Amino acid sequence: MTAQGGQPGRRKLELAQDRITLAHGAGGKATHALISAVFLEAFHNSLLEPLDDGAVFKTGVAGDQGLAFTTDSYVVSPLFFPGGCIGDLAVNGTVNDLAACGAQPLALSAGFIIEEGFAFADLARIVEAMAAAASAAGTQIVTGDTKVVQRGKADGCFVNTSGVGLVHPRAALSAASAQPGDKVIVSGPIGDHGATIMLARGELGISADIVSDTAALNGLVAALLDEVGAGAHALRDATRGGVATVLNELADASRVAIIIDEAALPVRPAVNGACELLGIDPLYVACEGRMVAIVSGAEAANALAVMRAHPMGRGSVIIGEVHDDPAGMVLERTAFGGTRVVDMLTGDPLPRIC
Amino acid sequence: MTAQGGQPGRRKLELAQDRITLAHGAGGKATHALISAVFLEAFHNSLLEPLDDGAVFKTGVAGDQGLAFTTDSYVVSPLFFPGGCIGDLAVNGTVNDLAACGAQPLALSAGFIIEEGFAFADLARIVEAMAAAASAAGTQIVTGDTKVVQRGKADGCFVNTSGVGLVHPRAALSAASAQPGDKVIVSGPIGDHGATIMLARGELGISADIVSDTAALNGLVAALLDEVGAGAHALRDATRGGVATVLNELADASRVAIIIDEAALPVRPAVNGACELLGIDPLYVACEGRMVAIVSGAEAANALAVMRAHPMGRGSVIIGEVHDDPAGMVLERTAFGGTRVVDMLTGDPLPRIC
Repeated sequence: MTAQGGQPGRRKLELAQDRITLAHGAGGKATHALISAVFLEAFHNSLLEPLDDGAVFKTGVAGDQGLAFTTDSYVVSPLFFPGGCIGDLAVNGTVNDLAACGAQPLALSAGFIIEEGFAFADLARIVEAMAAAASAAGTQIVTGDTKVVQRGKADGCFVNTSGVGLVHPRAALSAASAQPGDKVIVSGPIGDHGATIMLARGELGISADIVSDTAALNGLVAALLDEVGAGAHALRDATRGGVATVLNELADASRVAIIIDEAALPVRPAVNGACELLGIDPLYVACEGRMVAIVSGAEAANALAVMRAHPMGRGSVIIGEVHDDPAGMVLERTAFGGTRVVDMLTGDPLPRIC
Repeated sequence: MTAQGGQPGRRKLELAQDRITLAHGAGGKATHALISAVFLEAFHNSLLEPLDDGAVFKTGVAGDQGLAFTTDSYVVSPLFFPGGCIGDLAVNGTVNDLAACGAQPLALSAGFIIEEGFAFADLARIVEAMAAAASAAGTQIVTGDTKVVQRGKADGCFVNTSGVGLVHPRAALSAASAQPGDKVIVSGPIGDHGATIMLARGELGISADIVSDTAALNGLVAALLDEVGAGAHALRDATRGGVATVLNELADASRVAIIIDEAALPVRPAVNGACELLGIDPLYVACEGRMVAIVSGAEAANALAVMRAHPMGRGSVIIGEVHDDPAGMVLERTAFGGTRVVDMLTGDPLPRIC
């Protein structure tokens, strides 16, 4: 699950409408309400309920490490965009969900739902991008499935990737483990992917020199866990709903306050510019190659150093810290010296970003 | 993968068109051509290439049994049909792909792609059916994902289910392991699911007293493997493309001939009637709760007895046997004493059956 509610204190929101809206897929408040009201209601079990990026379990065979298991469907539009396509996006997204569980990928699956009339050449490009991305992450696509629906019953090509991974022996990660005194690290500039997709749709009539940050973060996470082990308390890749939504999930699950500094947030000028035109805060814009790490205060300097030394974490910075109070909330100290509440994403300003 | 080519001797078919057609999703010849030309070309690796119902691998941790991993996307239309819905169909299908690898499910994932405007009540029905099916199979849905696309960009609701399973310690199954002298067992009447979907669409203007056979076969497979172990050479659940396509995959992968008896094929009269009206051979009509088992001649009687003693295998019968020659082919001895070639499914007489 890339959309999470967190335990305890999960918000059981009422489902005001009786039909699905785009906001239910945006990763923010409506998604959490849907998950609570429909999915958790039916699927309740101890592995699902933490609503982490993947589930971690033992196989029951003596001596085994934990396995992580995750799934994501991709419906990004357009299918091809600067810096990537739905194929590498799907592979990297699933690798990153495993990484957020502290796991290295053992194997990936690929499921395709293709609209009749879709060009083979485009499918081949997508599939080649998946193979390259899997190889870059040190893993393979080992099983798959293809379905075709009639023209007009899908939108080109949808991709599901699921992944199985082996949890790092020193990992002790959980969305509920953030503690007062912890530092919040983000592994690089935020919002690149979402801003790239917005511009690629051409609706803004502007162009800018940004590309998606889609990338596999399993190597970065391995380096981090090798260095700080259980000093890393929680990891999340900041996809739908952006860094703001991820921090809200963690604050909610851990019953802590997270306070970030606006001045510390790494945002590229071109991303800032696109967000200003659209009236969207970059904190809510999806990244597809950035990890948010909550690390103990004592290990924060080590963690930052090892992340910066990794090719996928050169832009890592500490953006805030964890406090006791107000539990369950995210606050931002603004550049003007004030403090504002950073809520979870509401509505869906950017449908089909991933 | 529920659509398989088999190794060695996989047919590398030319892709005559440059666009995807419905036949590419039907599980027959066009699907195999697509898999060879696009997916295997890009994803080539030793775990994928056998094109079994799932991939089996070791986790690399000392002392572990093999893990099986599989994925399937479901686009069945209509979403609700006599005997089930897309939800239990998806769960049972993935459980059965694991079972065909000789594995019991450890955990399942669920990925939803939902069209804007879809009714919550329908989603809730689907999700409840998934939970019930998982419970019946002794497993759980432990991770998930939800995406929403704009109205007109999907068709109600598509579901992906992936699964991780633990391989039976005595399993020695492979599509390439069928040997001359083996018997071919099918676990019950064939074509019920496909015929039910055809009738549920209402296009034929007839009704009949048939329901989908969607069911989890992991218990049946466990009973079989407990009894005959490595005496079971190959298992496949007969979904898209029906029993004919599965037998062709096995004959091709094992480089053997499979000869079946028309008189032995279990087909319900109502299914036969619907198939006659449509001009479709029941051998090509999908089942969603029937296993095809290739078992050594020496163990065939034991296998049949244990399958018949299981609630999911009461209708098990031996439908044929494996021969040397003509390698790679499936033949049927007809009721009139002749012999005909049973080829793999061509085209797609029944789109979106699963």
